Amino acid sequence: MSAKIITISRQFGSGGRSIAKQLAIKLGYDYYDKEIIEEVAKKTGFTKDVVASRGEEAPGKSIFSYGFDGQGVPGIMNGMTMNDYIWSEQRKVIKQIADSGKPCVIVGRSADYILREYDDVLNVFIYADMEFRKERIVRLYGNTDNKPEKRLEDKDKKRKANHKHFTDLDWGYAPNYDICLCSSKLGMDKCVDIIADLAK
Amino acid sequence: MSAKIITISRQFGSGGRSIAKQLAIKLGYDYYDKEIIEEVAKKTGFTKDVVASRGEEAPGKSIFSYGFDGQGVPGIMNGMTMNDYIWSEQRKVIKQIADSGKPCVIVGRSADYILREYDDVLNVFIYADMEFRKERIVRLYGNTDNKPEKRLEDKDKKRKANHKHFTDLDWGYAPNYDICLCSSKLGMDKCVDIIADLAK
Repeated sequence: MSAKIITISRQFGSGGRSIAKQLAIKLGYDYYDKEIIEEVAKKTGFTKDVVASRGEEAPGKSIFSYGFDGQGVPGIMNGMTMNDYIWSEQRKVIKQIADSGKPCVIVGRSADYILREYDDVLNVFIYADMEFRKERIVRLYGNTDNKPEKRLEDKDKKRKANHKHFTDLDWGYAPNYDICLCSSKLGMDKCVDIIADLAK
Repeated sequence: MSAKIITISRQFGSGGRSIAKQLAIKLGYDYYDKEIIEEVAKKTGFTKDVVASRGEEAPGKSIFSYGFDGQGVPGIMNGMTMNDYIWSEQRKVIKQIADSGKPCVIVGRSADYILREYDDVLNVFIYADMEFRKERIVRLYGNTDNKPEKRLEDKDKKRKANHKHFTDLDWGYAPNYDICLCSSKLGMDKCVDIIADLAK
């Protein structure tokens, strides 16, 4: 097999983003992560922080709508809620990236689902054990008032709810991906090697 | 990393068993699949068919008990239900295999969970898309009154329920395994190569 587009879904703290970045360098592929957020922010006028949290972590229910309590702002967001609007714009950006025809690695944002009709896509899920993830988020992002375990659980829950809401698929359920790798067990470099070998 | 014991959990029709067999040959490891059923049948006095279906596919609820309607037969099965008794004997056989210290590949039967405290274990989950699985079960096991899709769904449901009942884990949820591979997408030989490389 080979793959021109690689989507990396990942648990927070699993090193999925670093794996994606190394992979892109190794293969000479374009890399999309924060670039998607910046593009959506530019298009919608929302801040990058809003796009980052709404576009990937907002649950389907109890959404904070912009303006008319759950109804969105007609004219500005075509009657959609804020979350739906950001997701829809994010979807367009991801499709544009894929349509450009340039080989790329895309991190998160349900790109696996958005590009499900495209050929040459390899969908990867990266996860890790709790100790590995706890150590990693504290080292990379520092401590907060919440314990690391709680932060990880919250983030998992939000990504899961967001993914379910927009795709109706269970986030992390193996058959929804082509390959799933435990970075703490296999080692991050090994994950890069396995995926790169499959993509070639 | 390296692994002396490889457990292969698999969707019915995914080719997981064939992958496990090829892997054992490639690595020179012992292979356990039907051998476990035979050993449990010998120990318990049940037929191999009963052990095969009860040991891996019986749901936790609505079990057919042997004798006292759901209560098991005290003295023969220590007051356990038939399913619990078979599972318990199966667990002992799997631990004996692991304790022998000989490198091996074990197919199914929640061996990943049973051996969770052991070192040098690599837990693999193999799955495939519906078309691949349908074609495979009809070719290997022939047609039955039930449509292939229905047979696959039934088997998945039973394995899932059995696994949940005895382990409280979600069967097929990626973070419960070290690596999960889609055999129809990656190719069966590639799956063998990836796992063998990790085990070495």
